[in-house]
Amino acid sequence: MPEFLKLTPIQEALDILLSHLTVNITSECVLAENALGRVTTNPICSPLPLPPFTRSTVDGYAVRAADTFGASESLPAYLRLVGEIRMGTTPSFDINPGETGLIHTGGMLPASSDAVVMIEYTQEVGADTVEFLHAVAVGENIIKVGEDVQLGEEVIPSGRRIRPAEIGGLAALGILELEVARKPLVGIISSGDEVVPPEEKLLPGQVRDINSYTLSSLLAQVGAVPKRYGIFPDQAKQLENISAQALEECDVVVITAGSSASARDLTSRVINKLGIPGVLVHGVAIKPGKPTILAICNQKAVIGLPGNPVSALVIAGKFVVPVVESLLGLKNAAERRLFSARLSTNVPSQAGREDWVAGRLSFGPSGYLVEPIFSKSNLIFSLVRANCLFKVPIDANGLPAGDMVEVQLLF
Amino acid sequence: MPEFLKLTPIQEALDILLSHLTVNITSECVLAENALGRVTTNPICSPLPLPPFTRSTVDGYAVRAADTFGASESLPAYLRLVGEIRMGTTPSFDINPGETGLIHTGGMLPASSDAVVMIEYTQEVGADTVEFLHAVAVGENIIKVGEDVQLGEEVIPSGRRIRPAEIGGLAALGILELEVARKPLVGIISSGDEVVPPEEKLLPGQVRDINSYTLSSLLAQVGAVPKRYGIFPDQAKQLENISAQALEECDVVVITAGSSASARDLTSRVINKLGIPGVLVHGVAIKPGKPTILAICNQKAVIGLPGNPVSALVIAGKFVVPVVESLLGLKNAAERRLFSARLSTNVPSQAGREDWVAGRLSFGPSGYLVEPIFSKSNLIFSLVRANCLFKVPIDANGLPAGDMVEVQLLF
Repeated sequence: MPEFLKLTPIQEALDILLSHLTVNITSECVLAENALGRVTTNPICSPLPLPPFTRSTVDGYAVRAADTFGASESLPAYLRLVGEIRMGTTPSFDINPGETGLIHTGGMLPASSDAVVMIEYTQEVGADTVEFLHAVAVGENIIKVGEDVQLGEEVIPSGRRIRPAEIGGLAALGILELEVARKPLVGIISSGDEVVPPEEKLLPGQVRDINSYTLSSLLAQVGAVPKRYGIFPDQAKQLENISAQALEECDVVVITAGSSASARDLTSRVINKLGIPGVLVHGVAIKPGKPTILAICNQKAVIGLPGNPVSALVIAGKFVVPVVESLLGLKNAAERRLFSARLSTNVPSQAGREDWVAGRLSFGPSGYLVEPIFSKSNLIFSLVRANCLFKVPIDANGLPAGDMVEVQLLF
Repeated sequence: MPEFLKLTPIQEALDILLSHLTVNITSECVLAENALGRVTTNPICSPLPLPPFTRSTVDGYAVRAADTFGASESLPAYLRLVGEIRMGTTPSFDINPGETGLIHTGGMLPASSDAVVMIEYTQEVGADTVEFLHAVAVGENIIKVGEDVQLGEEVIPSGRRIRPAEIGGLAALGILELEVARKPLVGIISSGDEVVPPEEKLLPGQVRDINSYTLSSLLAQVGAVPKRYGIFPDQAKQLENISAQALEECDVVVITAGSSASARDLTSRVINKLGIPGVLVHGVAIKPGKPTILAICNQKAVIGLPGNPVSALVIAGKFVVPVVESLLGLKNAAERRLFSARLSTNVPSQAGREDWVAGRLSFGPSGYLVEPIFSKSNLIFSLVRANCLFKVPIDANGLPAGDMVEVQLLF
């Protein structure tokens, strides 16, 4: 029987796959305002110092600090008010010894002033005199040219996913467009004699295609472009033809097998005909998802996923997403999905495979708690009820309630 | 001076704002395959039982369980093989006493069979006899009609953000379209005499508009549609006109003030003229973001954000995002953004306000560690370097290294 697989531990399996991925995705130029979620392919350096002019960080009065030395509530200093510095303009006057000017937060300092006194410590006395109840040191309440970012400084590294903060940073620098990784095109093929499209009426014995849709949306979420090739029966020739076409057109190919062992075996044979080196891993020590196939054909990743919708979605998260992230040049992407929580209930498991169990994470008085969602047939609705998956390690024969477990959030 | 605000604690401020938000967003119908990230407005119930037919969960032989009773390796049972059940079809035969049929995982059980024996415990003996080394109980290795989901059962609640799992669940049920909340339209107005668009060359004293772009992308991320109205000088009449237009056209209006105290005060006066009841909160006990303005004008939320880009983005996360989520009807949205981590370094703070400090979260041998990112002028690049914000509680005068802090992830 085809089901006696040598099982590879999950991290080893992923390392084997990624180490064979040598071709990087090309880059393309996009408008900064449309770059949310894209990944930089080059470090971005500042074309100007920030701030580009010395500015006040408070509302108050621009002074020469020396003119305020010794000023206090009992012995105020008095300076002549020579004007107001309007926002967004070069000051129309300088500050000579004995003079001061009204300035607002973000306002540009006159060339000869070197500090600002907060308005709370001042009082206007008559039309052109300001009383200072507080001394300031040179540099107080101001930010000098380039103190935040120097000219030429790297402000966004290569391999960074663009978030709202990066979009703001680009706007601050007047950078209107940037190079990002092209979105990898991922071909999705569903196979299985029993599988029909969601819009078709089910006949007895048939199931609807779920995997094409869960995988498409997962891939869109992580920055790839899914291309659905449709549903094919468990026949070698048809699967070979469509897989070859998908491999030609896409950066990555994902094939979900029919649910029987013979259908899964067929997928492996089809993939091996697609190109070299072919199947690298067949069988991973994980539940759900044991019959996973990881392959490289002509320098492109080809992944055979189990037909069960829960298995397919879990395994896609473990292998397809890292492939996409690797092609995008994304660094430390996995890190942000980690989490840890206390287990609410005993969980059975078998040693020799790493289990990923659907769960509901909640925040209680004693921290994060995760409750397993048990489901007899590994139905997609067990994931609908879940907001996370948690890990039962490969060497554990189940885990007792109260143990800390590693959690992967499902968004 | 306008800056002596009565500061409202952050949760109280949010409660005041949300309790005045009485108008819900309308719903619209979208294709299920395009529903990723949308929020359901009605519970979705199953139009069929799942599975819709009794199916095998393993590869093996369909039997009447009674025919295997007592079977063991030393005393096998022998049944007559009457055929193979093809995937995706109704079995072309039934199982009479003394008979069995080959079945695959997911295959439909013949009407009179009530269990499946795993293929590992069987052996074909000649052309039409199967040897069974193992007994099964009634119901073993099968899932009965409706055992996963019953006809009419609620499978997706109202107020749920659609993830890949929900898209799969909808495909499983053949549900091709669904009602989701219309995306709230959020008008964004930038004000400030010193603010110019990113594409303009900076003159001395000017800064580029950052907030329109950070806020647009944050809003797009959480499922709203941003509408940028542009940059307006700190003049009452112009701000009043554009704000009134935005209030008319949008579901929510966000105004970022110029950075001076007088500009912030102007925003408050402009908002109070827009509609009733007007400003509900002016001044929140939070850093950054103290001069935040929360208002309801003619049943719509109007939020005045500080001009500083870090403050504006942090405060938008605290107030604008919850308003959008409330309009979408999203439940427990805040929950998934919580996290806790150990502080790597002492952090100074002043009691009387809740501080949200930019930080870098990392995973070390002793769990999650967050390192503060200190920045003199609260520049947007402090958020570019950050992957989280963490909280210093309102009653703390700083926190020592080693304390556990509440963390909000920045994606």
